[in-house]
Amino acid sequence: MGRKPNILITNDDGIHSEGIAALEEGLRDIGEVYVVAPETEMSGASHSLTLARPLRIRQIDERHWTVDGTPTDCVTLALNQILAPDIRPDICASGINHGANLGDDATYSGTVAGAMEATILGVPGVAFSLVANRTWDFTESVRVAREVTIRTLAEGLPSGTLLNVNIPKGFAKGYRVTKQGFKTARPVISEHIDPRGKLYYWIGEVRDGFRAEGGTDFEAIDKGFVSITPMRSDLTNHLAIEEIRNWES
Amino acid sequence: MGRKPNILITNDDGIHSEGIAALEEGLRDIGEVYVVAPETEMSGASHSLTLARPLRIRQIDERHWTVDGTPTDCVTLALNQILAPDIRPDICASGINHGANLGDDATYSGTVAGAMEATILGVPGVAFSLVANRTWDFTESVRVAREVTIRTLAEGLPSGTLLNVNIPKGFAKGYRVTKQGFKTARPVISEHIDPRGKLYYWIGEVRDGFRAEGGTDFEAIDKGFVSITPMRSDLTNHLAIEEIRNWES
Repeated sequence: MGRKPNILITNDDGIHSEGIAALEEGLRDIGEVYVVAPETEMSGASHSLTLARPLRIRQIDERHWTVDGTPTDCVTLALNQILAPDIRPDICASGINHGANLGDDATYSGTVAGAMEATILGVPGVAFSLVANRTWDFTESVRVAREVTIRTLAEGLPSGTLLNVNIPKGFAKGYRVTKQGFKTARPVISEHIDPRGKLYYWIGEVRDGFRAEGGTDFEAIDKGFVSITPMRSDLTNHLAIEEIRNWES
Repeated sequence: MGRKPNILITNDDGIHSEGIAALEEGLRDIGEVYVVAPETEMSGASHSLTLARPLRIRQIDERHWTVDGTPTDCVTLALNQILAPDIRPDICASGINHGANLGDDATYSGTVAGAMEATILGVPGVAFSLVANRTWDFTESVRVAREVTIRTLAEGLPSGTLLNVNIPKGFAKGYRVTKQGFKTARPVISEHIDPRGKLYYWIGEVRDGFRAEGGTDFEAIDKGFVSITPMRSDLTNHLAIEEIRNWES
């Protein structure tokens, strides 16, 4: 491309997370890195776009901005306001998420949504998540993020496609191209009483309850591989179209 | 089923919206109706799940509850806390949304996400949206919602499938089973100055910029039909898996 590539970085754990710092550090020598990330943690933000209220952009320095919104807000504002029209990213890297985005949990994920929004707006998006909890060592994730970013910049991605990359704990055996699996477990709701005697509820995250088989992301991680799932912003169940075709009238 | 079916209703415009009142009124004689909806407007909430803070449930009467969260929060709490274990919905109807959920806008939609969350939790989900703006006449939408709900209760849906139903303005010519289309337009960001002289930004909704062709939801609406798109909580671009298979190592 005759110049250093422009790399937009976002995440859903917020600009102060370890994962985004590791990602920025890892990609810094590959291109010109710009970070536009949520001011605060936005886990579970999904592909939500803030329409009902205004948004504030805070510039930290010439390469870093925060937005008081979701990862999708960050990418939309980065590409249409903050960096436009002078800087056009060649890739958007989202993460590194503190925790897995496997199976249908990907549909709740702000990390995946950041990459999806970039893809919708014509910039190849890649989401990175470290499949761990409690202890975070991003060394291997950074190595994977570098390899995937370099390859995406060199080869591009299939039209309309983003990559959902999940990295196992410890040393990865290699890469597997996977399809999204499905959870089987239900969320656990905890009921508590606040200091004023009123009930409140907290939705718990479900960390297990899946079948690691059939070429899924779960299977790749279970066997110690990096999982790369090509995704798109299409929710159609194409196989079901003919099944319900007789509903037409 | 030997008893009146249980119908869970939710939406993303909030419990005080006209659309949810119309839907409840329309489905009341089909089954036992329970409404669990966001306290306030949650448009664009997507499939976001509130994990970083507690949630409050407010019971209005024996059939109505609000949650200070997203449509996904409402459905999760309805099925795992509010109605459980005594009442198990046979269907979850989400809407009627004030505005279209066509093309990749479906991925931002709280209305679609409410139906998706129900489907993930094993209850058939159907999302209803009226393709209009400014003036709202829900008469035809209610007729469609009744027909689709009755048929879904009678025949069920393909495994793991929800329906994204968009209803045109005025009288619908019939039903088309469609696939999700894709927008071509970009969001418009407005920049404003607040009373204290500080900049703020507002993400505008894009209401056009699509091709009404190829069996898409856009095409059905453009031709005056109700669009029924079967969807699932799977973001995999299955066609791209073989395209990037050589990334494996």
